[in-house]
Amino acid sequence: MTHRLHPDALRDAAIRAEICALCSHFYKLGWASGTGGGISIRSGETIWMAPSGVEKEKLAPADLFTVDRDGQVLTHPASDLSLTACAPLFLAAYRHRDAGAVLHSHSLEVILAAALVPPGESLDFTRLEMVKGLEGGAYFGTSTLPVIDNTALEHQLEERLEQAILDHAQASAVVVRNHGIYVWGRDVTQAKTQAECIDWLCSAKVRMHAAGIDHLRHDRSIP
Amino acid sequence: MTHRLHPDALRDAAIRAEICALCSHFYKLGWASGTGGGISIRSGETIWMAPSGVEKEKLAPADLFTVDRDGQVLTHPASDLSLTACAPLFLAAYRHRDAGAVLHSHSLEVILAAALVPPGESLDFTRLEMVKGLEGGAYFGTSTLPVIDNTALEHQLEERLEQAILDHAQASAVVVRNHGIYVWGRDVTQAKTQAECIDWLCSAKVRMHAAGIDHLRHDRSIP
Amino acid sequence: MTHRLHPDALRDAAIRAEICALCSHFYKLGWASGTGGGISIRSGETIWMAPSGVEKEKLAPADLFTVDRDGQVLTHPASDLSLTACAPLFLAAYRHRDAGAVLHSHSLEVILAAALVPPGESLDFTRLEMVKGLEGGAYFGTSTLPVIDNTALEHQLEERLEQAILDHAQASAVVVRNHGIYVWGRDVTQAKTQAECIDWLCSAKVRMHAAGIDHLRHDRSIP
Amino acid sequence: MTHRLHPDALRDAAIRAEICALCSHFYKLGWASGTGGGISIRSGETIWMAPSGVEKEKLAPADLFTVDRDGQVLTHPASDLSLTACAPLFLAAYRHRDAGAVLHSHSLEVILAAALVPPGESLDFTRLEMVKGLEGGAYFGTSTLPVIDNTALEHQLEERLEQAILDHAQASAVVVRNHGIYVWGRDVTQAKTQAECIDWLCSAKVRMHAAGIDHLRHDRSIP
Repeated sequence: MTHRLHPDALRDAAIRAEICALCSHFYKLGWASGTGGGISIRSGETIWMAPSGVEKEKLAPADLFTVDRDGQVLTHPASDLSLTACAPLFLAAYRHRDAGAVLHSHSLEVILAAALVPPGESLDFTRLEMVKGLEGGAYFGTSTLPVIDNTALEHQLEERLEQAILDHAQASAVVVRNHGIYVWGRDVTQAKTQAECIDWLCSAKVRMHAAGIDHLRHDRSIP
Repeated sequence: MTHRLHPDALRDAAIRAEICALCSHFYKLGWASGTGGGISIRSGETIWMAPSGVEKEKLAPADLFTVDRDGQVLTHPASDLSLTACAPLFLAAYRHRDAGAVLHSHSLEVILAAALVPPGESLDFTRLEMVKGLEGGAYFGTSTLPVIDNTALEHQLEERLEQAILDHAQASAVVVRNHGIYVWGRDVTQAKTQAECIDWLCSAKVRMHAAGIDHLRHDRSIP
Repeated sequence: MTHRLHPDALRDAAIRAEICALCSHFYKLGWASGTGGGISIRSGETIWMAPSGVEKEKLAPADLFTVDRDGQVLTHPASDLSLTACAPLFLAAYRHRDAGAVLHSHSLEVILAAALVPPGESLDFTRLEMVKGLEGGAYFGTSTLPVIDNTALEHQLEERLEQAILDHAQASAVVVRNHGIYVWGRDVTQAKTQAECIDWLCSAKVRMHAAGIDHLRHDRSIP
Repeated sequence: MTHRLHPDALRDAAIRAEICALCSHFYKLGWASGTGGGISIRSGETIWMAPSGVEKEKLAPADLFTVDRDGQVLTHPASDLSLTACAPLFLAAYRHRDAGAVLHSHSLEVILAAALVPPGESLDFTRLEMVKGLEGGAYFGTSTLPVIDNTALEHQLEERLEQAILDHAQASAVVVRNHGIYVWGRDVTQAKTQAECIDWLCSAKVRMHAAGIDHLRHDRSIP
């Protein structure tokens, strides 16, 4: 007799494995060092999230929590772990954008790029092919990401992050000054690839700033 | 009885495996993040190409298309995928240079180096040993790569990329401003090693620009 | 009959394996190139340490020494190896902070950041989320690391490193100018994650210095 | 009956495996991209060397040549490969320093650091702990590496490289301007770890130059 897993159990196992693999990958990218960063995935009404304060590159499938869209814990790990402090922030993107996945990174590239942005302004990208990797991005258009100030405790960010999501209907991410970024997508692939494009764009902006390079100076392309 | 594969099936499997391995490698080099970049290989009259808009580091052999030199699709993946928008650009290098492989990268090093090049001028490298890794490159010579402006959509690049190939008979690559680079070679090894040399040379140029270093200042070598 | 290992032998094997894995990881991070750097772990009254002058990424479990809190060698490798010259420095952190693990790195980020610090001053970090990864760190607080001058021989550092530990009761690390850093924690996880946060913070400081970026300039957050 | 390999065959297999592993490692470090760079090992009167113009990260044990100290080929690979153009340069270090291994890298860090050195001067390092990783290096001493100009063809470097070796009895390496570096050691471990220290030191020098950082400015250590 073949032992068959219920489809829900298979889905659960696959999502847990994917979160662990991505957290390990983000660690290697420098997005999740020192227990920071991570990724959350939604399937239907269930949302998988990592625990708080653990080394993300060593996450095991059994370490994850599941919560519903209101943040009520559905299942928790056997070990003595707490839900990530990012939970309300992840939930804001699920609530307002019906995201399929939300990631949080402490990317230094993003933080340096955001440090160049005056208060009340957004982080803008234009005329770089990688802009096309962002939802709604176009080479001759401008993609903008809202930048909000940080708070003493992560969960205190909820209100201003939610406001930024509402104020910037086109954005797929919110940057938190001197902290990091929240990026979402319709599924985990879009969340990850948009985060990669944003990182590339921020790195380009910072390196151009540092080297005195203006990528528009010699550009004669016409929309 | 030994089960033997037809030589064409073996060749097909080998090329598909190589494209997947190289795409994964290019992702690690930062050339193919966010679904960008990729490599195409030709064997005889058949050309293998990746699909559009997928994470290149996760490409599977069955995901690839084969096309002929005119771009007619010979075989397509079972899954619901489209041919890469780079197809006409890859084909231009196959047509005019009889290339054995063409790669496309979104290397930040190349884009930063190209941002230093005024309109109508080329990206030039001289007196660096790595120049010798380029077809026809010599330490005391100058290797030049044409730089073209980007277009809103990738396939619109075809005409100006083709013109650049025709205008620069010595070049093994065309740089697309604020976008990336197309590099070809007589085989996949030469396409890849030339791309590595170009990346190294662009990185050198950008870091020297940023640090105020002139590699010719103290050079007393005599041709 | 099941062959069972004594719990002490299991613990010994696990710690040796962890030290080897971490040394290999630190090598990849650039913290332990050229035989430099390493990590020591304490369990109860026993302390495991690497030998002197070996390639840290190739360390084998059998290469390690064990010492007691006074530095008396308990067990030594069969091969002709000497105890690391860092031993007295590791012991200072065990003695004064009851650390569970101490690591030493030659991180270039740390050394460049420390080169910005005038004599007698400390390396300070504030208003960066990663500060919260340090013991006692807060976003609106300031975490400080003492910086001491280097000596000709590593073991000569003992006195001034010990003094720095005593003088900076809040610090989890001592920076040695033009040399590297010693970081400790209540266990190996805290030592490693704090070292990651410090590295991130130093890298941020140096890149901001190089690029003329001030992360406080546009920050309007209120404690 | 146990099948036993002759000790010479074992040694041959071990050295070939080590060269392949190191070439792959150097590729990942950026020292051997685009077919450049490599390492040669001597055991007794036999010297193992890689062939010319191959991707170093894909080198197979059977691809290697063996030569004697005069450069006479003892064994060559079955495939149609030529001996590396670095052969006479490797031999110069074997001849004049009785080296056990010699490596060649195209490290960008070394080339940028050398670009800062005026004609006739050497690349000097002092007051950085990593200097102690060089043969004869001391924290309060100065380690110097000769810098020679490049030539059109690699083998033409022989005479000036040999002269630099003779003129700088203390040096473990010769830098070739705008090209790369040759580093040797009494064995493969010392050649590799010295190359790592030199790379670290060059990277430090270049980043300090670019960022306007002077590591001696605040250093009050006394020899």
